[in-house]
Amino acid sequence: MAKLTSRAEDYSKWYNELVVKADLAENSGVRGCMVIKPYGYAIWEKMRDQMDKRFKETGHENAYFPIFIPKSLFEAEEKNAEGFAKECAVVTHYRLKTDPDNPKKLVVDPEAKLEEELIVRPTSEAIIWNTYKNWIQSYRDLPILINQWANVVRWEMRTRLFLRTAEFLWQEGHTAHATKEEAVEETEKMLDVYADFAENFMAIPVIRGIKTPSERFAGADETYCIEALMQDGKALQAGTSHFLGQNFGKAFDVKFTNREGKIEHAWGTSWGTSTRLMGALIMTHSDDFGLVLPPTLAPIQVVIVPIFKGEEQLQKIDEVAYNLQQKLKARGISVKYDNRTENKPGWKFAEYELKGVPVRIAIGARDLENKTVEIARRDNLTKETQPIENLEVYIENLLETIQKDIYQKALNHRAEHTTKVDSYEEFKRVLEEKGGFISAHWDGTAEEEEQIKNETKATIRCIPLDNPLEDGISLISGKPSKQRVIFAKSY
Amino acid sequence: MAKLTSRAEDYSKWYNELVVKADLAENSGVRGCMVIKPYGYAIWEKMRDQMDKRFKETGHENAYFPIFIPKSLFEAEEKNAEGFAKECAVVTHYRLKTDPDNPKKLVVDPEAKLEEELIVRPTSEAIIWNTYKNWIQSYRDLPILINQWANVVRWEMRTRLFLRTAEFLWQEGHTAHATKEEAVEETEKMLDVYADFAENFMAIPVIRGIKTPSERFAGADETYCIEALMQDGKALQAGTSHFLGQNFGKAFDVKFTNREGKIEHAWGTSWGTSTRLMGALIMTHSDDFGLVLPPTLAPIQVVIVPIFKGEEQLQKIDEVAYNLQQKLKARGISVKYDNRTENKPGWKFAEYELKGVPVRIAIGARDLENKTVEIARRDNLTKETQPIENLEVYIENLLETIQKDIYQKALNHRAEHTTKVDSYEEFKRVLEEKGGFISAHWDGTAEEEEQIKNETKATIRCIPLDNPLEDGISLISGKPSKQRVIFAKSY
Repeated sequence: MAKLTSRAEDYSKWYNELVVKADLAENSGVRGCMVIKPYGYAIWEKMRDQMDKRFKETGHENAYFPIFIPKSLFEAEEKNAEGFAKECAVVTHYRLKTDPDNPKKLVVDPEAKLEEELIVRPTSEAIIWNTYKNWIQSYRDLPILINQWANVVRWEMRTRLFLRTAEFLWQEGHTAHATKEEAVEETEKMLDVYADFAENFMAIPVIRGIKTPSERFAGADETYCIEALMQDGKALQAGTSHFLGQNFGKAFDVKFTNREGKIEHAWGTSWGTSTRLMGALIMTHSDDFGLVLPPTLAPIQVVIVPIFKGEEQLQKIDEVAYNLQQKLKARGISVKYDNRTENKPGWKFAEYELKGVPVRIAIGARDLENKTVEIARRDNLTKETQPIENLEVYIENLLETIQKDIYQKALNHRAEHTTKVDSYEEFKRVLEEKGGFISAHWDGTAEEEEQIKNETKATIRCIPLDNPLEDGISLISGKPSKQRVIFAKSY
Repeated sequence: MAKLTSRAEDYSKWYNELVVKADLAENSGVRGCMVIKPYGYAIWEKMRDQMDKRFKETGHENAYFPIFIPKSLFEAEEKNAEGFAKECAVVTHYRLKTDPDNPKKLVVDPEAKLEEELIVRPTSEAIIWNTYKNWIQSYRDLPILINQWANVVRWEMRTRLFLRTAEFLWQEGHTAHATKEEAVEETEKMLDVYADFAENFMAIPVIRGIKTPSERFAGADETYCIEALMQDGKALQAGTSHFLGQNFGKAFDVKFTNREGKIEHAWGTSWGTSTRLMGALIMTHSDDFGLVLPPTLAPIQVVIVPIFKGEEQLQKIDEVAYNLQQKLKARGISVKYDNRTENKPGWKFAEYELKGVPVRIAIGARDLENKTVEIARRDNLTKETQPIENLEVYIENLLETIQKDIYQKALNHRAEHTTKVDSYEEFKRVLEEKGGFISAHWDGTAEEEEQIKNETKATIRCIPLDNPLEDGISLISGKPSKQRVIFAKSY
């Protein structure tokens, strides 16, 4: 097994290699579209199930809406249409026929041209609000709290596995409400659900904030986000929650009679996370040896590897190992015992390190004598010997410790890579030398924001929700500012 | 709430009304595509989770492959391509632009034409086997046992909710094997998984069989199926499992070195079930009052309705009902207590009948005195009074009884509507008067099969797997036949 390129050498190359070598995903025969391999999909399934649980606990139901959006519906909400028009896959025909010049080939049948083109959904507000129109007449029909798990397509020119692909998997919540207050509350509630999921399940610390108008979702009045910091000092937007105002309510004429008997347009929200989170997971925790997975997300949490010479030793270890495996399984821990004889222990160690299995237990002849095992933690690469008696309790606690330690490590990294700066010179120097989140004053104009972006490639990631007020002077224009915002280069 | 059209009056109309009124699905603004509403999706989720569990228990892993198939890959397996070419949605462009004649409209940007058209997957053999080519070098890489949950598109001209829609949700298993025997074994194993799921989870009896060559999946060497019989005497194919031979192995050049060191093409299978199963569920169990759901699939298994006059009575019933609800929940039973005051009990009864809630518990003032409740079964519409003490045990057993009774009822219906016939005259008479499965001799030719289809609209649903050999004479040609096959009109 060839070693991974180190992160220090080429972070981007390290990422691409890791995604492929750890069997998470690969590029497909279709431009920009990925194949999510079983190991990667198993991780995504855990993320999906956990989010789904949290959505249901907060009163949401799943549903499914068509993948196609007729062009006339797509263009109804103008800003939304404008925002996505440049990256739309468009279906124009509904039939192929045999190529008249070559009976082995197929060509598009020109007689099967659609009357109206269909857009492959890049996001589903249009088709969903067109449906809500028929579901909503009275305030009694509200709120509607729906989520959808689906694939979407955005024709990106430069793609990278998980981070930016033409097709990706996601969930998109779409809710409708009777009042502005309730819709804002929902937007913020779902941001909290995302932040809680990222931090307590994925062990990724995030900043909750609000996007500037230039970074808003097309068609939203306000976009909330959670922003994570990757190991290379670049930010990654890990989830967004949009307050849509009455924009879609008006564009699709979704009206209802309110408690006072007056007719109003419904208020909306939408919120989404995607397979992009796989990229965030990888770039938050992993190292030069491969994946590091938080125990919550690991398809295999513990692997047991026998160290043996000859069949007789293996049989003795087998007995101990199967026993241990049963005890761990009884506690809900997913555990694999790898007693294959084709591969040497060293090969197995490297393989499970690459795959990010949080805990490795090795059992050798001396361990049998001493009634011990060797435990190796994947996250910090430490090893220790532990008695096998009550090991299941020890392992259960260890998995919890690892989950906390991984989170703390990422939190420390973020703290070390968050810098307050008070001049544009310092801003550029920190960005160049250290990267990370840069907390600085901004004059609130799109002009200054754009100039900084053009000159440094850093964007305003968000205005943090829990921001303290602080008088300051903006980086370029020197105008007074009341609070700092978070800048960074980003994925 | 307007009553449903009765099944006797117009079965097709009854079905369409029920799907919409029970909040399962509705037509969307996109031709032939449906919206699966939360209540319908909750049922589909239960089916999905249960199938997924069975796939994993039989060693399969989930993965995800692109929704698009480049035309050149699509046409590689000729029969498969020919079979699906007539109903393909084709993406030809990747961008919209503002209409030069109307700034509020969008048009396809002619400069963003794809070099090669992309087919929206009608099924994924092509893209998956193109991927397997890179995964398979040696017999050690086999078998590959993968399943995918996805949406697919087949441009059907006449669509009906769940039964035939342009887009539908499904799972598709795609496996690759080193030997023919192993691939055939997999094909049969997955048919058994489907049959077991249909019978023991959905309470739908099915016949396991093999399709005739004319009804085979395009690109398969053999298609196995499970066939169910609907209440109106029409058959519905509830799942298929295909032995693909080396067809895709050869078309995509998927080769491996076998144990003997020789190079061979891989053997394949594919197998699928879809949201069409929702149609089978509805048309197997439901009645003129609405849905009848087997307890395994019911999002709400038990509903408790208070019958009360005034706030004081309600409070007393509330206490008893909440207590009962807790006890039922503790046994894993999903239970709703509907003490809303806006609606009368009669309205609630009709609503939960429409939605197919298996058990309804009514609690009134006299019940409080007597420490009893009234229990109504949705499946057979019977009512009885039971003591409230230990009611949770009684209900748990009742749900199991209902599950069995529903299955038995469907099995009886099938037995009553399965007829052996020995002449074409009798065949036509039975088909006309009674419908159902008709067991008859066939000469094994495509000609006779087609003539029967053209003259009666009945097709050979399958050659049952457990068919007894029996000498006979075929319906039209009068040629000798060794076994009966199953004919029916079908969905």
